[in-house]
Amino acid sequence: MVPQGERPELQSVRTAVVGASGYSGQELLQYLARHPVFHLSFVTSRQNAGQPLSQFVHGLPRELGVLTFVDAAPGSDLAGKADLFFLAVPHGTAAPFAVALRKEGKTVVDLSADFRTTDPAVYKEFYGHEHPAPALLDEAVYGIPEIHRERLKQTKLIAAPGCFPTSIILPLVPFVKHVEADSIVVASLTGVSGAGRKLEMRLLFGEINDNMYAYSVPKHRHLGEIEQELSLAAGKKITVTFVPHLVPIHRGMLTTITARLTQSLTDGEAHQVLQKAYGQEPFVEVLPPNQLPEARSVAHSNRIQISARVDARTNRLLLFSSLDNLGKGNASQAIQAANLAFGLDERTGLA
Amino acid sequence: MVPQGERPELQSVRTAVVGASGYSGQELLQYLARHPVFHLSFVTSRQNAGQPLSQFVHGLPRELGVLTFVDAAPGSDLAGKADLFFLAVPHGTAAPFAVALRKEGKTVVDLSADFRTTDPAVYKEFYGHEHPAPALLDEAVYGIPEIHRERLKQTKLIAAPGCFPTSIILPLVPFVKHVEADSIVVASLTGVSGAGRKLEMRLLFGEINDNMYAYSVPKHRHLGEIEQELSLAAGKKITVTFVPHLVPIHRGMLTTITARLTQSLTDGEAHQVLQKAYGQEPFVEVLPPNQLPEARSVAHSNRIQISARVDARTNRLLLFSSLDNLGKGNASQAIQAANLAFGLDERTGLA
Amino acid sequence: MVPQGERPELQSVRTAVVGASGYSGQELLQYLARHPVFHLSFVTSRQNAGQPLSQFVHGLPRELGVLTFVDAAPGSDLAGKADLFFLAVPHGTAAPFAVALRKEGKTVVDLSADFRTTDPAVYKEFYGHEHPAPALLDEAVYGIPEIHRERLKQTKLIAAPGCFPTSIILPLVPFVKHVEADSIVVASLTGVSGAGRKLEMRLLFGEINDNMYAYSVPKHRHLGEIEQELSLAAGKKITVTFVPHLVPIHRGMLTTITARLTQSLTDGEAHQVLQKAYGQEPFVEVLPPNQLPEARSVAHSNRIQISARVDARTNRLLLFSSLDNLGKGNASQAIQAANLAFGLDERTGLA
Amino acid sequence: MVPQGERPELQSVRTAVVGASGYSGQELLQYLARHPVFHLSFVTSRQNAGQPLSQFVHGLPRELGVLTFVDAAPGSDLAGKADLFFLAVPHGTAAPFAVALRKEGKTVVDLSADFRTTDPAVYKEFYGHEHPAPALLDEAVYGIPEIHRERLKQTKLIAAPGCFPTSIILPLVPFVKHVEADSIVVASLTGVSGAGRKLEMRLLFGEINDNMYAYSVPKHRHLGEIEQELSLAAGKKITVTFVPHLVPIHRGMLTTITARLTQSLTDGEAHQVLQKAYGQEPFVEVLPPNQLPEARSVAHSNRIQISARVDARTNRLLLFSSLDNLGKGNASQAIQAANLAFGLDERTGLA
Repeated sequence: MVPQGERPELQSVRTAVVGASGYSGQELLQYLARHPVFHLSFVTSRQNAGQPLSQFVHGLPRELGVLTFVDAAPGSDLAGKADLFFLAVPHGTAAPFAVALRKEGKTVVDLSADFRTTDPAVYKEFYGHEHPAPALLDEAVYGIPEIHRERLKQTKLIAAPGCFPTSIILPLVPFVKHVEADSIVVASLTGVSGAGRKLEMRLLFGEINDNMYAYSVPKHRHLGEIEQELSLAAGKKITVTFVPHLVPIHRGMLTTITARLTQSLTDGEAHQVLQKAYGQEPFVEVLPPNQLPEARSVAHSNRIQISARVDARTNRLLLFSSLDNLGKGNASQAIQAANLAFGLDERTGLA
Repeated sequence: MVPQGERPELQSVRTAVVGASGYSGQELLQYLARHPVFHLSFVTSRQNAGQPLSQFVHGLPRELGVLTFVDAAPGSDLAGKADLFFLAVPHGTAAPFAVALRKEGKTVVDLSADFRTTDPAVYKEFYGHEHPAPALLDEAVYGIPEIHRERLKQTKLIAAPGCFPTSIILPLVPFVKHVEADSIVVASLTGVSGAGRKLEMRLLFGEINDNMYAYSVPKHRHLGEIEQELSLAAGKKITVTFVPHLVPIHRGMLTTITARLTQSLTDGEAHQVLQKAYGQEPFVEVLPPNQLPEARSVAHSNRIQISARVDARTNRLLLFSSLDNLGKGNASQAIQAANLAFGLDERTGLA
Repeated sequence: MVPQGERPELQSVRTAVVGASGYSGQELLQYLARHPVFHLSFVTSRQNAGQPLSQFVHGLPRELGVLTFVDAAPGSDLAGKADLFFLAVPHGTAAPFAVALRKEGKTVVDLSADFRTTDPAVYKEFYGHEHPAPALLDEAVYGIPEIHRERLKQTKLIAAPGCFPTSIILPLVPFVKHVEADSIVVASLTGVSGAGRKLEMRLLFGEINDNMYAYSVPKHRHLGEIEQELSLAAGKKITVTFVPHLVPIHRGMLTTITARLTQSLTDGEAHQVLQKAYGQEPFVEVLPPNQLPEARSVAHSNRIQISARVDARTNRLLLFSSLDNLGKGNASQAIQAANLAFGLDERTGLA
Repeated sequence: MVPQGERPELQSVRTAVVGASGYSGQELLQYLARHPVFHLSFVTSRQNAGQPLSQFVHGLPRELGVLTFVDAAPGSDLAGKADLFFLAVPHGTAAPFAVALRKEGKTVVDLSADFRTTDPAVYKEFYGHEHPAPALLDEAVYGIPEIHRERLKQTKLIAAPGCFPTSIILPLVPFVKHVEADSIVVASLTGVSGAGRKLEMRLLFGEINDNMYAYSVPKHRHLGEIEQELSLAAGKKITVTFVPHLVPIHRGMLTTITARLTQSLTDGEAHQVLQKAYGQEPFVEVLPPNQLPEARSVAHSNRIQISARVDARTNRLLLFSSLDNLGKGNASQAIQAANLAFGLDERTGLA
């Protein structure tokens, strides 16, 4: 995979990962270690400060393995260390980094939720407090390349979405005008890595193995951005009933969407809608109607599998998607979006 | 747990399990080994014929462990071997056994689907061929004790339901008159044991570990009986959109139901509806609205956990249930129903 | 299972569990909830103080479910609350409870390591500090009933062993005189529950799923008690090379022991040695040489499976054992030992 | 990673995989799809004949995905289809393919055991029948590049070893002269993929999840080749006691080796022995003594982790290794060896 067209002189971009001790941060390191243009120059981690990357990321080339984690606050001289910054810190703590880095003209890819909702009121509704940096919201672009490709090529602030929104928005957008706006019901099954690498009792092996449950109902935090993107695509207000479930798997997300059709559709027609929307996309695998997405087919990749079926008995559209919640649902999609922002072939480093 | 009231003289019922090499059959043996009234006298298995039970069921009392599996066809002299017969053979092969045994006046608990649909036309729609013993359909009682307790006390032919129907019907029945009849959407997550112990490539560890997928959409075989029981409770035709998902767990089923409310309801009111329906039931655990069912809390038991929430944003009722798909979803519920048919306390052998 | 012989008048023993928020404590509660003589009257937990048992232990009878956890220190008036105390608190913190309770004449079953080594010097070697209550060491009896049954009937202080020692000592004791004293090599595979329910990064699902590793080599803490018991049985000093491995399973322990034979032995003779030692034991399942122990056959039980094979090519004895590391390796064996101390049939509450 | 030195003109090698429906075959396809020199031109599978590769291997480039599986017998005109053949068929069925292909001068990498033992008598001892092609044994080279690199550069018949031998031979070879020849005891833990993708009851998810057990004792089939390679390195006869264990994981193998030292050694000295042997090897990760190998660090890679510890109490050396049993223990190591046979940098296609 070679860098394409627009900026052929681009040989190397100094790249930093801020907050690399979690699962997102480690996955970013795995991908960036193989990226031909984005070269890791700086990695921060409060928890592992002073330790070499090789302790946490296996199989790195020697020159990367010896890089050590640094504990860096937003106020510190981060901007001098790199030109591209991936923020893999918790929601709410990313915004101060973004403000400081954007002031210095740096490109920022934020994997937290801080810049995903364009309306600060929606942010407040779902996160319970005022938005920490509303002035930046205008320039932030929601980081799903298949939906916002052109805007991503022009931005320096990418709001990389998480796994739930990606797995829901991508299958639904081509159908928003085929379904009743208030009839959408979504059930997602998520692997544990979606919850991050945190010291919480509920995340122990002994609590999750042989177990599963629904949670965060009826108003999961990410509903705000999901409804925002669907409404944007539909040109009208879309509401969604959303039930996430935790299952005993580490990486992987499976989403099942049902919605009442406004007019009847065959399986073949539904498949054509997907095919038309995504048939040329390098990372979207549109499955034939008789094949349903599965978790392992997309593990450790930037691909999403999607398929559509029609339940003629109830006149409902059924949509299915599968992605790696650390891949297309997180780290690798963030790189795909960053590739666009730097004028690279979006597949660079992801094949 | 002691036998109750009606037939105090009942000391021992000779009990047979037909088809005991699968997961259902083995689970039946586990429960029956501890049952104070139903005494195992005969166990059939084509696959393990001639081998002792102790090879397959661990921790049995010595006198049961030495019992050997017998290969017995419907035509053989089965009826003389016991008075209560559990049929744990595949769909379609149970009916001939039931016909022969009912002719001899024996009590039959069929764990297959052969007698679950009261209308032979529905059977044909979902199973693709004529019903093999329509004359018996009238006397068969659908084996959910919480719904059909009185009829189960009077029958000698119990159609024990599987895990999907139990996990859907029990939470929904108290609400059928609160929701729009065509608005019900169900997503179920099932452990692998629900598929039985079969030599199929898709059931290998290597195919299921770290994997998950939806299947059998849009018309799973068990939809017929699910809609039958819901319609019966509602007094009108109910249709359901149903999506089952396989997850990497052995035993356990989690069901999430959404339906549009015909009038608004609070979380507390929804809880009260469940509490009123099942508050006194020994095997139904109604959870408070802020607690959701989980798989491990009911593993290796005959209990089902249920809770209700309201999504006020979309005016939908959310119902959640969890059961062991070899327990309340299968073998132990079959014993609970059989207890009723023999005039025992339904908790006998299940506490 | 009914109480046997010696003290037929014994109807009820008030029983307390100290430290019931961990996996050991919860498993004790599960077993005690069904015990016909040991009646739970008091349960302590720092972490869950004030909450009802029903939150943590599912399927309890209503009268037990409403019992609440109490935060109680060794100095508090614990002794008045019960006559039998199970201590399920971490190593080092159990001793002060034991001292206070023994002073009041109470029976104490300590599931920690505090009283397992009879020699305070060995304790210091393996735990790094002086023994906290050396005066009690003389009266403590090591709680493997199959080895110390008669002494357990006479004691009021039981040092209940953990899973590694039980899985190693039981198979080896009958053979200590058949093998070279310095030739024993043990590899154990343990489920995660053996590590307890602690907030440690290494115990997260994301760190254990799809993973395994050896640890605590070459001198695991429990080697002291293992060598003590083996040497006692052999009448000479026995040393052991021991390598524990963590595997992605919750409950279960598998142990493989190899040792050089001092004289040749056939598979059949080795089996006979086991049969002679344990053939009558209710909780030891001696398997024929062609069958090897497996984890699931003993899960949720107080049984241990053992088998022996001879590797004639290398003249080594191979011993295999399997137990539930929360069952025979922990909570249920503690109850088995307590049954003896109270003159009950040791199977009481465990069948 | 670019092809190195010797044959710079080498642009493309037509490559076939014989028997690609199993886990080994599929893993080969995954690696070969990214290999810059070995170009897939022909893939056989009895089971999936006529189906496109894209059905089984996800994320393939389109031109590979459309390739279809062919059912080809040894007698057919295979030789014309490619110049390099990977045989991923069961033991015993590979030899006829090898004979036919070597006759045509083709390079053969056999992943079965057919050419691993140099002595046909050893083959007969462990496999129970005469060797099917003894005339080829002389030219076969055992495919561990770190041990037989120079010979692999000269051969056209590679006997690629399996996971157990690789995980045992690599750590032990540098120490064969430091340990007593008859004191070696090995315990290996293997993921299920090591058993292949076969329709066997014991390989069902329901039989392996939450389970583990030892098997194939005392004389596992691969002991012959293990002792052959160790004896070759030691210059004297080495015997090994070997106990494999199955654990609930898909890919991954962990091996623990103990052996009595002939003279005392410190942890540091043992580490130096490994460092000297493998410090420059691209795929051997020698860990410091305080760090032990783990399965996930090498998953989906061609790396093996090794570390050494000394148990001074018992004067035993402890060696630990971890590899992916489909990677360094199988498919990727076969490619590493094939790279050498074609004069390529052995890292080609594996980084």
